[in-house]
Amino acid sequence: MEDTRCPKEASTTHDKPKSCGHQAKGLDHWRTLRCGPWVAARKGVVLRPAHLPFSNITVCLCQSRRLKDYALPNASWSKEMLDQFNKFMEMCKDGTWIRIPSYRNVKYDIAEWQGEKLEDEEEETEARLFSRSVDVEGLGFEYVMFCNLSEKRVVCLFQPGPYLEGPPGFVHGGSVATVLDNNLMGCAFMTVGGALMANLNISFKSPIPLGSVVLVESRVEKVEGRKMFTSGLVRSTDGETIYAKATALVILMESKKSHL
Amino acid sequence: MEDTRCPKEASTTHDKPKSCGHQAKGLDHWRTLRCGPWVAARKGVVLRPAHLPFSNITVCLCQSRRLKDYALPNASWSKEMLDQFNKFMEMCKDGTWIRIPSYRNVKYDIAEWQGEKLEDEEEETEARLFSRSVDVEGLGFEYVMFCNLSEKRVVCLFQPGPYLEGPPGFVHGGSVATVLDNNLMGCAFMTVGGALMANLNISFKSPIPLGSVVLVESRVEKVEGRKMFTSGLVRSTDGETIYAKATALVILMESKKSHL
Repeated sequence: MEDTRCPKEASTTHDKPKSCGHQAKGLDHWRTLRCGPWVAARKGVVLRPAHLPFSNITVCLCQSRRLKDYALPNASWSKEMLDQFNKFMEMCKDGTWIRIPSYRNVKYDIAEWQGEKLEDEEEETEARLFSRSVDVEGLGFEYVMFCNLSEKRVVCLFQPGPYLEGPPGFVHGGSVATVLDNNLMGCAFMTVGGALMANLNISFKSPIPLGSVVLVESRVEKVEGRKMFTSGLVRSTDGETIYAKATALVILMESKKSHL
Repeated sequence: MEDTRCPKEASTTHDKPKSCGHQAKGLDHWRTLRCGPWVAARKGVVLRPAHLPFSNITVCLCQSRRLKDYALPNASWSKEMLDQFNKFMEMCKDGTWIRIPSYRNVKYDIAEWQGEKLEDEEEETEARLFSRSVDVEGLGFEYVMFCNLSEKRVVCLFQPGPYLEGPPGFVHGGSVATVLDNNLMGCAFMTVGGALMANLNISFKSPIPLGSVVLVESRVEKVEGRKMFTSGLVRSTDGETIYAKATALVILMESKKSHL
């Protein structure tokens, strides 16, 4: 049961993390996140320093793979994917953009987006966020989302692996719908709070080659009562190719937190 | 290399399959399919008896897992899924409905749909049909599609596993889009031939609980030149709950075969 015990401290500096008393379990044992004030409080790790809106926070991930942040580079990422990641991380430095951590259990993503504190560890569940369901790096969805709150935009870097095939050699329409769904819902969760997708309308303009790197861009167009209208665009990193366009109607739940 | 040799014969009766000279490899070694005349010719197995439009054909699947037909019951299927499967298989007996075999490599699915003969085995590929990407039975997409050619309809029995999660406990919108995409494209491929999805518009009416069994129904509404308009519906097996409605615009490629 020792592995379920987690340190009660978090480092808010770039220094090496404080020791949690656990044996390090490789490179994934520690993560340094650049976090906004809405970032969820994790078990035993206070991630919401009110005096420090955007801070680098090192967290211990020794509890389980559930808390592994998948929105960070791994060996399967291509040079183009890494270059784009570094470009956006650079834009995160002044707080204009924020990288959104991503887990394989959706409750942690939602907590991340909504700034809620999860209760202490529940029982293990088989359920996984659909877009994090492939275990082997590079075979499924490789993606990371960044948010610009002031512009109400979310941008996703997406490198589709070979398990996402639809037409031979190209990405399945359902895979495109999945990253768009994540991204458009991310817009709602990051800017207002809980929401449900009511309508998703996708126009496929050009097939996406497996293994390429594309940008998925979403923004909030307008809000009328509980109706939020969002739009999405899937394009090549150089902007030369439009792969898909989308609009979505999102129904907002009771807003628990607003960043607007 | 012995495993790559496949028998050149196919049984068109309900009798036990002829021996292929290979050692049987468990229950998955043989499959008896109820096939229409468009069913693809597999390597060394003639599956298109012109004089027998709907026939039971037994094929040897000893070459590789690529040729495993995933649209057949496995231990993860619930009683409701099996009951629905048996009901549709009963309707297949007079040829009104046909079960559509499904493989994890999309080229075999397309061949199945279009009645093409694939060349002898190419090199192994990592790519997989997105909706067959989860290896463990029951965790991902469990589904089987049936086609009614005279009514230009395709119906899919769908049991979403825990790896398809979106909202906690419910199916991800991208998973719903994926089965709808498959089903709506199946309509085009089965009734006309090659096609590409141009627009997919989904209205989500009610969240689908993980592990439930739903019916996905698609039909061709009209064809104008190369534009095919199709509609889809996701509902509970008792028809009491509508989970999603969809429309799609499909662009037909050069038609290689028409069943209309």
